[in-house]
Amino acid sequence: MAQNKMRPVDEVLRGKLEFKLAKVIAPKLTGWQLSLFVWSQGSFLFGKLIKSKLLRMNNLPQCLREIIISDAPMYQPEYPANQAPEIAVKNFLDESDPKERVAFALEHLPARQSHFQDDSPPFLYWKIRDYVEAYTTGRVTPTQVAERIIATVEEAKKRSPSLVYFISFLSEDVRKQATESTERYKKGTALSVLDGVPLAVKDDIDCLPHPSTAGTKWLPQVREVKEDAVSIARLRSCGMMMIGKAVMHELGMGTTGSNPHHGTARNPHDLGRYTGGSSSGPGAIVASGLCPVALGTDVGGSIRIPSSLCGNIGLKPTFGRITNEGLFCVGWSMESSGPIASSTEDALLVYAAMVGSHPTDKLHSWPLPPCVPDLNVGFQAIMGSLKLGKYSDWFNSTFEKEVAEVCNKSLNLIFETFGTETKEIILPELDEIKIAHLCTVGSEYVSGLAGYDTKLLKELSLEVQGTLGLFKEFTALDYLSSQKIRRRAMYFYMQAFESVDVIVTPTTGTTAPVISSAALTVGESDLTTVGITYK
Amino acid sequence: MAQNKMRPVDEVLRGKLEFKLAKVIAPKLTGWQLSLFVWSQGSFLFGKLIKSKLLRMNNLPQCLREIIISDAPMYQPEYPANQAPEIAVKNFLDESDPKERVAFALEHLPARQSHFQDDSPPFLYWKIRDYVEAYTTGRVTPTQVAERIIATVEEAKKRSPSLVYFISFLSEDVRKQATESTERYKKGTALSVLDGVPLAVKDDIDCLPHPSTAGTKWLPQVREVKEDAVSIARLRSCGMMMIGKAVMHELGMGTTGSNPHHGTARNPHDLGRYTGGSSSGPGAIVASGLCPVALGTDVGGSIRIPSSLCGNIGLKPTFGRITNEGLFCVGWSMESSGPIASSTEDALLVYAAMVGSHPTDKLHSWPLPPCVPDLNVGFQAIMGSLKLGKYSDWFNSTFEKEVAEVCNKSLNLIFETFGTETKEIILPELDEIKIAHLCTVGSEYVSGLAGYDTKLLKELSLEVQGTLGLFKEFTALDYLSSQKIRRRAMYFYMQAFESVDVIVTPTTGTTAPVISSAALTVGESDLTTVGITYK
Repeated sequence: MAQNKMRPVDEVLRGKLEFKLAKVIAPKLTGWQLSLFVWSQGSFLFGKLIKSKLLRMNNLPQCLREIIISDAPMYQPEYPANQAPEIAVKNFLDESDPKERVAFALEHLPARQSHFQDDSPPFLYWKIRDYVEAYTTGRVTPTQVAERIIATVEEAKKRSPSLVYFISFLSEDVRKQATESTERYKKGTALSVLDGVPLAVKDDIDCLPHPSTAGTKWLPQVREVKEDAVSIARLRSCGMMMIGKAVMHELGMGTTGSNPHHGTARNPHDLGRYTGGSSSGPGAIVASGLCPVALGTDVGGSIRIPSSLCGNIGLKPTFGRITNEGLFCVGWSMESSGPIASSTEDALLVYAAMVGSHPTDKLHSWPLPPCVPDLNVGFQAIMGSLKLGKYSDWFNSTFEKEVAEVCNKSLNLIFETFGTETKEIILPELDEIKIAHLCTVGSEYVSGLAGYDTKLLKELSLEVQGTLGLFKEFTALDYLSSQKIRRRAMYFYMQAFESVDVIVTPTTGTTAPVISSAALTVGESDLTTVGITYK
Repeated sequence: MAQNKMRPVDEVLRGKLEFKLAKVIAPKLTGWQLSLFVWSQGSFLFGKLIKSKLLRMNNLPQCLREIIISDAPMYQPEYPANQAPEIAVKNFLDESDPKERVAFALEHLPARQSHFQDDSPPFLYWKIRDYVEAYTTGRVTPTQVAERIIATVEEAKKRSPSLVYFISFLSEDVRKQATESTERYKKGTALSVLDGVPLAVKDDIDCLPHPSTAGTKWLPQVREVKEDAVSIARLRSCGMMMIGKAVMHELGMGTTGSNPHHGTARNPHDLGRYTGGSSSGPGAIVASGLCPVALGTDVGGSIRIPSSLCGNIGLKPTFGRITNEGLFCVGWSMESSGPIASSTEDALLVYAAMVGSHPTDKLHSWPLPPCVPDLNVGFQAIMGSLKLGKYSDWFNSTFEKEVAEVCNKSLNLIFETFGTETKEIILPELDEIKIAHLCTVGSEYVSGLAGYDTKLLKELSLEVQGTLGLFKEFTALDYLSSQKIRRRAMYFYMQAFESVDVIVTPTTGTTAPVISSAALTVGESDLTTVGITYK
């Protein structure tokens, strides 16, 4: 009797593979249509029918419910730790001092030219080393930087359209930190190269004295921030100046950055377009040059998408490498926090300070030791020896074909500069993995928000209410099938990494989408665009 | 704003606890009512309403959906391995020979009196050491034992009511194994103390040359048995004689043992009553004296319940201690296989042979080394030094109060014999744990059966179809909440084990339920009884 059954993973890899990646099919909703959709979800029969239809159109039942998957579920990323020591990477002890790790990273950066040899305007894309040169030579003080940021944020609000960067911004708190840092530089007791460097923090990472709204109107009413998140405490111990809590897509549940409660961040390169999300504020702040680095969080692209759409460097660290302690973290089996920066070296310096697990982590079966790369030792030779893995069918399947073209040009440039070769690889079941990912994050969000007063949940934007309503459709079977697919995905990626060191792909399949006017007030639900953005 | 929120686990333990354990509320269904219930599940609206009502009556939404649980989910049993070496336990290497472990267990059993000094009838409750004495002294041969078993099974079928023991029983295969064993004893090359000892195997454990039906009519059509389960291969290497595949509750999805396809096992102590399930055949076979040991599997009581209701010794080994490789295992995060025996020493000898994980196990993050207890060294002193933990409110809350009385008498007897003390403990949230368990096993069953042809699934008994239909109602949120509750439960048990060595409780809250006549043909659904049985 014919059964619909996923083939064993090794058999899949031996067979002929056809590339397939379906677009998300959903109506673009805003205004009254969006209201109607959200209302329908409260209606037992009508809501069920619509949602069931949407899920079926997107292949969910065929992929997760009507198929035999013999693999055991894998509920969290599991992988054997690297046995061979990595080249040009230094491992630190779990309890190592963040300052010590930052010092190592700093010493091992490639040599640099002073920023101040040219006539660049003082606040445009300074790197951390520029701030430090300016602070130590007395060219500028942290207090001057703080005042300039305060003034800029005030100005931005008054512009038309107004520019939204922060949900919580406290001038006095910024001034206080700046004064202390200025004092330290005066006395020659700066804590690290991060001392006095401004950092914006996404609003789902706890950072005193601010509340954490996670983009909602109500979270601080039921969740008090009692201490800094562990990563923030580490950065603070290095002297970093916390500027404020950056705006974000509400609860991280969207990839545009649209937020009708606190305002939608605008892309500094084109104010009519989105930054991408959910770390929309951090993306805009870094791209506009307000801070060299901001912290974001990422479950399914929330650091990477705004980095890509705003031209920043974004790093989603490996699961288990950085503790999530102190995040309002609802996607716990996939979430990491990491830097969004205007340069690779700044991402590295901040990463070096925040990296590492924490004793209270109970989630990571395989917590990884903090490690910091050495960008100096034989950089040219190491780059030349790397093998980049490229799945061309996937790489080139961007919604806008120019995106793939630009990315292909970059690969050529890397080859011409370093001799780095690109090798063709294959990654099976990308369609299934996409659906499994959506089900996992969706289910974990629903679980993370369960039990909150329904009155509060009704204050969520219509878009987020609509998405949550769909996410509530996931059954225990869907979740378990998704974890079985996760095991398969981990296997396919492990196999690919047998022959290459890096897998390259465009981060997003499109450039920044245009902000519709309705989106600014009631929000919009455009899962098709989300599906395209979210490569 | 008041939120419904589970308190932190340490706060719960510090506070005042009220004992609460709700009965399962469900109509007892058989005949046309059961048919109607199963039919209604196919009806979109009517089915949804009935099931939603049933779940609400049993507190599921309040316990899993409408509450904030801040604990991280724990998807599999996780616990730190015992740091201190246990007393009177020998650890073996993973790759150790089962024969070596059995030899150790045998050498360290307390001294015994020969069975043959009295006039007991030859097949009633022989222990393994009785078989071996009879075989080595030439009093009986394995072939004679085999012939006697074959004759008994034939006779049993002809009785009224007929006694059902096996789903697959092949006389020729039993004779072949017996001949080989007899030959070995003749040559003095018996493989171990298990050589020629008859063993019955539950029909969800692969054992050649039999198919595995797992109690269904159809499983062998879509799942071929290609080799012995790992535990069977280990027992076979010790010479054990595999008698046949014992009848069971279909798919293990029930605790009575009712099976309208292959027949319902009857309790040897009262043929009008159930054996309990799901390892019903193994329970009946051991209690009737046909084999000294049988293998069962247990997710939520399937070894322990029939052992209790038939007066056997049943052992559900710790998760991770015995591989599940070769089981038709659908409840993978909680399932173990283990012995049902007529004596503790026989359970130990078989356990010693089968214990240990297997390289193909990908599920056990913490596979445990095979270990075998030593029942001889200072047994009296060790028993005297143990602390038994008893949660009296729970212990005494049996459906039939005589059950608790008998169990209390046993504790007194142990105290009088060994001086073993019983200490009062507290286990919070038993009600929540019960619901979380049901959701976990139910969800994993649905996942394990997903994708099979619906025509096959319609051949399942009405009872199992009804149960599966209810299980399909579990959402991803329910599953995740249940895993959060699992973490809390593990914490509470770990805390209890800080002050005691063993937790004692009656295995079942009732004695064996009566078999209704309708149950034999169409089956019955009686979740209230199941809830009572299943303490």
